[in-house]
Amino acid sequence: MMTIPSLSDIKRAHQRIRPYILETPVMTSDSLDKIAGCKLFFKCENFQKVGAFKMRGAANMIFGFRPEERENGFATHSSGNHAQAVAKAAKLANTKAYIVMPHNAPEVKKKAVGYYGAEIIFCEPTEEAREQAAQEVIESTGAIFVPPFNDSRIIAGQATAAKEFIETQEKLDVIMTPVGGGGLAAGTCLAANYLDLKIKVILAEPEEARDAYDSFNTGILQKVKSTNTIADGLKVSLGELNFKIIKEYASDVFLVNEREIVDAMRMIWERMKIIIEPSCAVPFAALLKNKEQFKGKNVGIILTGGNVDLGALPF
Amino acid sequence: MMTIPSLSDIKRAHQRIRPYILETPVMTSDSLDKIAGCKLFFKCENFQKVGAFKMRGAANMIFGFRPEERENGFATHSSGNHAQAVAKAAKLANTKAYIVMPHNAPEVKKKAVGYYGAEIIFCEPTEEAREQAAQEVIESTGAIFVPPFNDSRIIAGQATAAKEFIETQEKLDVIMTPVGGGGLAAGTCLAANYLDLKIKVILAEPEEARDAYDSFNTGILQKVKSTNTIADGLKVSLGELNFKIIKEYASDVFLVNEREIVDAMRMIWERMKIIIEPSCAVPFAALLKNKEQFKGKNVGIILTGGNVDLGALPF
Repeated sequence: MMTIPSLSDIKRAHQRIRPYILETPVMTSDSLDKIAGCKLFFKCENFQKVGAFKMRGAANMIFGFRPEERENGFATHSSGNHAQAVAKAAKLANTKAYIVMPHNAPEVKKKAVGYYGAEIIFCEPTEEAREQAAQEVIESTGAIFVPPFNDSRIIAGQATAAKEFIETQEKLDVIMTPVGGGGLAAGTCLAANYLDLKIKVILAEPEEARDAYDSFNTGILQKVKSTNTIADGLKVSLGELNFKIIKEYASDVFLVNEREIVDAMRMIWERMKIIIEPSCAVPFAALLKNKEQFKGKNVGIILTGGNVDLGALPF
Repeated sequence: MMTIPSLSDIKRAHQRIRPYILETPVMTSDSLDKIAGCKLFFKCENFQKVGAFKMRGAANMIFGFRPEERENGFATHSSGNHAQAVAKAAKLANTKAYIVMPHNAPEVKKKAVGYYGAEIIFCEPTEEAREQAAQEVIESTGAIFVPPFNDSRIIAGQATAAKEFIETQEKLDVIMTPVGGGGLAAGTCLAANYLDLKIKVILAEPEEARDAYDSFNTGILQKVKSTNTIADGLKVSLGELNFKIIKEYASDVFLVNEREIVDAMRMIWERMKIIIEPSCAVPFAALLKNKEQFKGKNVGIILTGGNVDLGALPF
C-alpha cells in the first residue's frame, strides 16, 4: 500500500481504531515554557496502549482486515514499540502475532512482547537479517506482514495522533515529531496539511542517525549510515512513501546531538514527572537548540513513547 | 491552630487555594488493575505545583493571612516537599520564605527551593536541630512559622486533594494515602468522612518508620524510632492533631518493607510512565500485599509527589 493517505483514510483509521486506543492527554508545563520561551503542548503518546503511538498504525492495519482474513495471524520485524503494538493489536483481534526482533533489543521490550502473548523470533541486529527472518515466518505460517512505517495504512494510523492533537488543542503554530522510519512524521505532515494549513510540521533527528535530514535537504532518499544513538526508535532508515510525504509537507528537519537528547529527556522527566523514551526528547532538544525560531509560539510536541529500560538509564 | 477542621474549613481552603494549585488528573491502568485484582484510580499529585500535594496546605495557610500580615515572610523546617511548597506559595504571595533544611536533604529538593527564591538555612538532620534553627529565624525576622503537618490549616489544605478526588471520581470504595506526619492522611480521613461515609480510608507506612501503625494500634501517640527508609517524606513522627483525626476516622494502617516499596514504585514507573517518589509507592505496595481485602473494589490512591533525584534511583 504505497499511496499517500487521504483525509478520508485518516478519518476512517481514527474511527476504526478508537475502541483499541486511548485518547491521550495533552500536558503543559509552566517551567518548561519559561525555559523554552514559547508555549508548549505535549501530546502524551507515552501513555498510549503499549506505551507508544505505534499502537495506532498497527491497530489500523490489523483491524482493516476482515476477521476471516486475520486467521493466520500477523508478523513484523521491529526494534521495539512496533513489535509490542502488533502483538497487542493481534491479541485484541483474537489472532497470533510473530515478532522478529534483534537479540540485542532492550530487555523491557522483549518482555512486553512476550506479555502480549506473541511468538518471538530472534535475529541478528541488521536490517537484512530482520527482513529475511520475517520473510521466512510469513512463508511458513501464512501470516500477514505489518510493515513498521513504509505503508499507507500505517501512516494513516499514526496520523490520528496529530489529528486528535489538532482537534483538541486550538491554535497550534507548530507540531514537532521525531523522525525515524517516518510513520509518525509523515502522518503528522498529512494531518496538519489536511486539517489546518497554518500549522507547520518540524521534524527532529539525532545527528547520529541523520538520514532524514540528508534526504530532506538533498531531495534524494538516503540510507542511514551510523546508528550510534541513544534514541533507539530512530535508528531505522526513512521509508520511501514516508520520504515522499515529508519532502512535500514538512517545513524543516533539525538535528541534535546525543548530549542534547539526554539533557532534554532529563528535563522532561524532572519537570513534568513523566517517563519518556530518548526518542521523544529529540524534538524538544531541537526546540531548545533553535529557541529564536519558536519564540512566543504555540508549539505542540508529540511524545512518542515511554518504554524505557529503568535498569539502564543515561543519568 | 489545633482544632479539627470542619467541612466548611476544607471548602474554604479549596476556594482560597484554587488560583495557586492545579486540579490534578486521575489516571488509571488496565495492566495494574489486572495485577492488583481491583479497579485503581491514581490521583496524580506528583503533577501538582512544586511536584507534590504539599502545595495545598502551604498555600492555604499563607493565603489565609491578609497581605499586610504576610510582610515579614514565612519560615519552615522540612525534609523537602513542604519546603518547596512554602517557598513557592510565599513567592506567589510576594513575600519572603526562610527554609530550614537538613544539610543531607536530596540535592533535587535543595535546588528547587533555591529556584523559588527562598533563603535556605542548613541544620543538622535531627528534629531538635530543625526546630531550634526555625525558632532562631522567626525571632530574627518576624516571619510566620508554617508547620509541616500538625496544624488545622495545613490539614484543611491537604484535605482538598481527597475532596477533589471524591468529587471527580464516582464510586470510590477506599482511598489510600501514605502516612508520615499525617497532614494528607488526616485531611483525607476528614474529607471522606464529610463527603462520603461509604469511603474507607486506609493508610500505609514503611516498617522502617512505623510510628503511625504503632500509634493507631495502641491508641497512644508514639514517636518514630528508626527512619531507615527510602520513603524520605515519611520519616517524621505523626503529629498530635493528625493522630487525633486518624485514630477516629482511618479504617486501618498497613506496613510494608523497603523491597516492597521499591518494587511497587518501579511497577508504577514502568506501567504508568509517570515519575513518583518512593513515598507514593507505599500505599500501592500495601495494596499488593493485602490483595484479598481489595478484591473487585474501586480503590483510589493519592500519588503524593514526584520529586526524585534521578541521579540516585533505587533501580
